[in-house]
Parts: sequence; C-alpha cells; structure tokens
Amino acid sequence: MSIHAVRKEQCHLAWDNSIPPILRVQSGQIVTFDCLDASNGQITPSSTVQTINSLVFSQLDQVNGPIYIDDAKPGDTLQIDVLSVKPAEWGWTACIPGFGLLADEFTEPALKIWKLEALDKLETSGAFAWFDEQKTIKIPLRPFAGEMGVAPGKPGAFSTIPPYATGGNIDTKHLSAGATLFLPVEVEGALFSIGDGHAAQGDGEVCGTAIETPMKVSVRLTVRKDRPYTKTPHFKTASSIPNQESYYTTTGVDSDMREATRSAVRSMVDFLVFEHRLSRVEAYMLCSVVGDLRLHEVVDMPNFVVGMMMPQSVLT
Amino acid sequence: MSIHAVRKEQCHLAWDNSIPPILRVQSGQIVTFDCLDASNGQITPSSTVQTINSLVFSQLDQVNGPIYIDDAKPGDTLQIDVLSVKPAEWGWTACIPGFGLLADEFTEPALKIWKLEALDKLETSGAFAWFDEQKTIKIPLRPFAGEMGVAPGKPGAFSTIPPYATGGNIDTKHLSAGATLFLPVEVEGALFSIGDGHAAQGDGEVCGTAIETPMKVSVRLTVRKDRPYTKTPHFKTASSIPNQESYYTTTGVDSDMREATRSAVRSMVDFLVFEHRLSRVEAYMLCSVVGDLRLHEVVDMPNFVVGMMMPQSVLT
Repeated sequence: MSIHAVRKEQCHLAWDNSIPPILRVQSGQIVTFDCLDASNGQITPSSTVQTINSLVFSQLDQVNGPIYIDDAKPGDTLQIDVLSVKPAEWGWTACIPGFGLLADEFTEPALKIWKLEALDKLETSGAFAWFDEQKTIKIPLRPFAGEMGVAPGKPGAFSTIPPYATGGNIDTKHLSAGATLFLPVEVEGALFSIGDGHAAQGDGEVCGTAIETPMKVSVRLTVRKDRPYTKTPHFKTASSIPNQESYYTTTGVDSDMREATRSAVRSMVDFLVFEHRLSRVEAYMLCSVVGDLRLHEVVDMPNFVVGMMMPQSVLT
Repeated sequence: MSIHAVRKEQCHLAWDNSIPPILRVQSGQIVTFDCLDASNGQITPSSTVQTINSLVFSQLDQVNGPIYIDDAKPGDTLQIDVLSVKPAEWGWTACIPGFGLLADEFTEPALKIWKLEALDKLETSGAFAWFDEQKTIKIPLRPFAGEMGVAPGKPGAFSTIPPYATGGNIDTKHLSAGATLFLPVEVEGALFSIGDGHAAQGDGEVCGTAIETPMKVSVRLTVRKDRPYTKTPHFKTASSIPNQESYYTTTGVDSDMREATRSAVRSMVDFLVFEHRLSRVEAYMLCSVVGDLRLHEVVDMPNFVVGMMMPQSVLT
C-alpha cells in the first residue's frame, strides 16, 4: 500500500473545485498530512488573550489538500478510514467575540493554553489535559480532524468555516482513529482535504473552539460505487472506545437545526431501507426506539450538523 | 422508610395546580405507581392499525398523581430518585398521522405490537424485544417514565403532551432505574405526577412514540433547599449502564430548538459555577471541550428538550 505525505504548507483557504490537486492517489491508498492548527499558526504556546484580538480571520481554518483520487466520479462515495491522529504537545481553546452558541452572553475574548499529556497512551485512552489540576478536572484526549471534506460540484469559492453536505468543518468528535467517514463525491477525483486538529471536543463545540492543536493525521482514501444513499456525511465510530457503544451515524447539515435533524433521520431511513431491507416505516420506527439524535456541531454558522446514531449492536 | 402506593385510576389529564393531591408524603419517602400506557388503555396487545384511526386524543398521556410532598415550597428543587421501572410483557409503537418529526413524509397510520422478553434480566441489561427476529434485529430494554413533572406555578390547565421547564413529557431515555431527576418546584407541595411508560427509546423519539407500555414505577421524592440553580429539568444518569459513561445533565425546554440548546448550555454553566466554583467562561469552555449536546425529545410539540451532558468522570 503506497503511502503519500502532505506538508503543512500544502493547504488552501476555501472549498473550490478549481483548486489544482497537490497529489493524485489510487483508491485504497494512504495519505498522511502534517497540519497546522485552525489558527493557521497564528496562536502559539506563548500566546495571550491579546492574540485573539489580533487574529486575521481570513487565514483561519485552512485545510491541507486537495487530493485527487483516481476513478472517483460524481455520485460515488469517498470512504475515509481514519488510521491515526497525533496532536502536538499543546493546544488552545478560545472564546472569540461574535463566535459561539452563547456569543451574545460571552462577549469578551478569552484564551486557554493546554499542555497535552501522556500522548504515548493515546491508543489506550490514557492521554489527557488538565483543565484544573487543583480541582482535579481532567479532560481525556481523543483527537480527530474537525475538517474533512471534498470539493463541491458547483463552481466558486466557499468558506471553510461552515460544514456542507460534502463535509468540511463538520467538527464531529466521533471521527477519531478507528472511525470511518463517508462523503458524497461531486467532482471527478473527489478532491479531498483535511485540517483543524482537535485533541478533545464535546458534541456541539459550544464555545466555538475545541482543544485546537496542530496534528499529524493518516487516512486511507477509498472510492465506493455501492453507496448511492450517501447524500450527506455518514460515519462509523471506532469500535474500541471504552464505555461507548459503536454506532453507524447519518448526519443532516442545514442552516435550520430542526431541518438538519429531519435530514439526519431521513438519511438513516434511506440507509436502513437500502442496506438492511426494512420498509420505510419500519426504519422510521427503529430510529425512534433505539436511534440517538446528537448535535455534533452548533457553532460553524450558518450550518448545523446533527447526527442520528444507530448502535451497531442492534444491526449485527 | 414509608412506602405509598398509587393505583392506575388515580390519574389526571392536565398539569394544573388546582387538581387536589391524591396523597401527601414526607420528603424522602417512596411512592410506587401502577400506570397504564400513554394511550390510557386504548391500545391493547390485540390492537390493529385500525385502533390508531379511532384513538381518542383527549384521553392520551394521562399522568398518575399528584403527590403533595411536605415542606416543598416554590424555589425549592424536587429530587426524584428512580428506584425501579417494570414494564408489562408487551408494548406498542405507532405512527400517528400528524405526529412525529417527519409527519409530512409518514402520513399513514402504523402500529407495531412488541413482546417484551427476559424481563427478569432487566437489571443486568438482558431484557429485549425482537424488532425482526429473522433479521436478528433486537432492541435492548431500559424502561423509564416518559412523563415526570410537577404542577406549574401559574393557574390553568396545561396539556400533558408538551414538556415544560417543570418537566412533564420530557421523554428522556436516560431516566431509567438508578437515575435521579431534579425539577424546579413552583407550588406548595410540588404536586408530582408520573406516567407514560417506555420500555425503550432513542434520544429524540423521532416517530413520536417509543416502545410504549404499562409500567410499575417506584421513586423516592426528596425536597432539596440547596439547588437554587435548578430552573429546568436536570438529571444524573445511572452509573451502572454497560458501555455508557455516567453524566450530569442540564436540559433546555423551548419551542425553538436552538433556544432550547442555548438554555441547556446556560444551565450547565450555572451548575458548574455554583457547584464546582468555576468562572463563567471556564464553565463555558469546559462544556465545549467535553460536554455533549443531545436531542432528548423532538416530537412533543411545541417544545423540544435538549440536554448538555457532562461526564461524571471529568468532575470527580
């Protein structure tokens, strides 16, 4: 299996199908990316809250890529197996005025710099960061890429801040090592890009930032011709997370939270009908009695990401 | 510890602080309730889809009570420890035209009658219901009361269909045996009622019904004077559920899903400031990096219930 490498500076600042690919790979090959944090290097371990006041917003949320995958055509699905995600030894969390679910109530800038510890124990869920050592409040680390997406079919440059049906800034904490993401392909070659390392995040990312960190991330990119129902991001969570079921999840991405929720459920119904041969009403009832709705991302305006999560144990 | 019993027929059909209590108990006492299912006995194990067409809606979602708890005053919190929830040996799930998240797409009535199996293994999570035995799709049972609430402070009769800040039809799957619910008291004696047995449900209850079932439920009712921040339902999940973290959760209840989400986060910030002595911005950041937003209930119009779930392991 060929392994390709992408460097920090091989990045771009918009989803735009006219950006030339930096690399061309075959379906099934592995690509490793070295990524700056979502501030594009503007925030460092020695930054203070003053740095937040002087952030250049047009430089934020760069993504590394795009990668052209041979044989990917519009209508196909790109399968992204997340093989490993390694954060740096530090991270940051900020309140950025005007950004976040309670932006009107938290109007002052704030910055927290984290030290990420025991990173050699990431795979056994032993890595952590102290939120407050005196109060013994400790955050377990489960790093993932906040941005994974493919180029849109329509022409033009689209901001990397909101998520889309083609992915992008979906900020979904469940996409840690061992997870698999599925995205609908809209252009020849798919044009996959990745970025926005997060060492830890809750569903929602409510203050607008996670534990943001530079990362090295490795993914296998595979073209799938057998998933016509993938119209929005779908994913399988890793099966090895302690105290957590593993799930097949369909998402809805919309500027209206309730419509995003409806889209997530509709996508799960489509999946269950196609893959598990249920009738539509059976699938709808199954979602009701055992599927869980979660708000994966509520701050990357104007779009919300809502997931309908079906326990794998129910289906297998 | 005195134990009091409430019979099936001791129920009412609205939240209304003028309904006289059927029982008066002291703080810390246990009450057991024998409850019909949410159809108020209209659906039986031999019902067919025709029963859905002839449902009398004004009789649905009755709740048993109200219970007057001595010394409960407006501004206090009622703590409800869920001690046990025993479903009947059958249940039902329906699509009721006009009801449910995708009501416009699922316009035909449907009814599924379930057989609930291995109920002697409920406590060890071994009870289940076959969704489709041939396809080996099986639903684990974790029963709970969909309705738990106290009387509103304002006069009048309010439907038992929507949830409120004082609880009611919060339809939150995490309130199974071992969980503790906290509700804000608005009237003397609190006037607690309960109903709407669910043998299993996902977060959201998207088709509008769970596995609905008659149930026998036992709760301890305790008046708390030390929780001035309980303005909406808060709860602790049971600590003994396999493959699941235990959480302290604050909820938001609102007719706008995003506002319900904002309210849930605001309540968690208040809780963390009061109980864990964090600053407001620290609390907000903690929610962002490790708190999970879930849509507990999205079908009991006009109100949604959204939860901000904080892992207990982070706080202790």
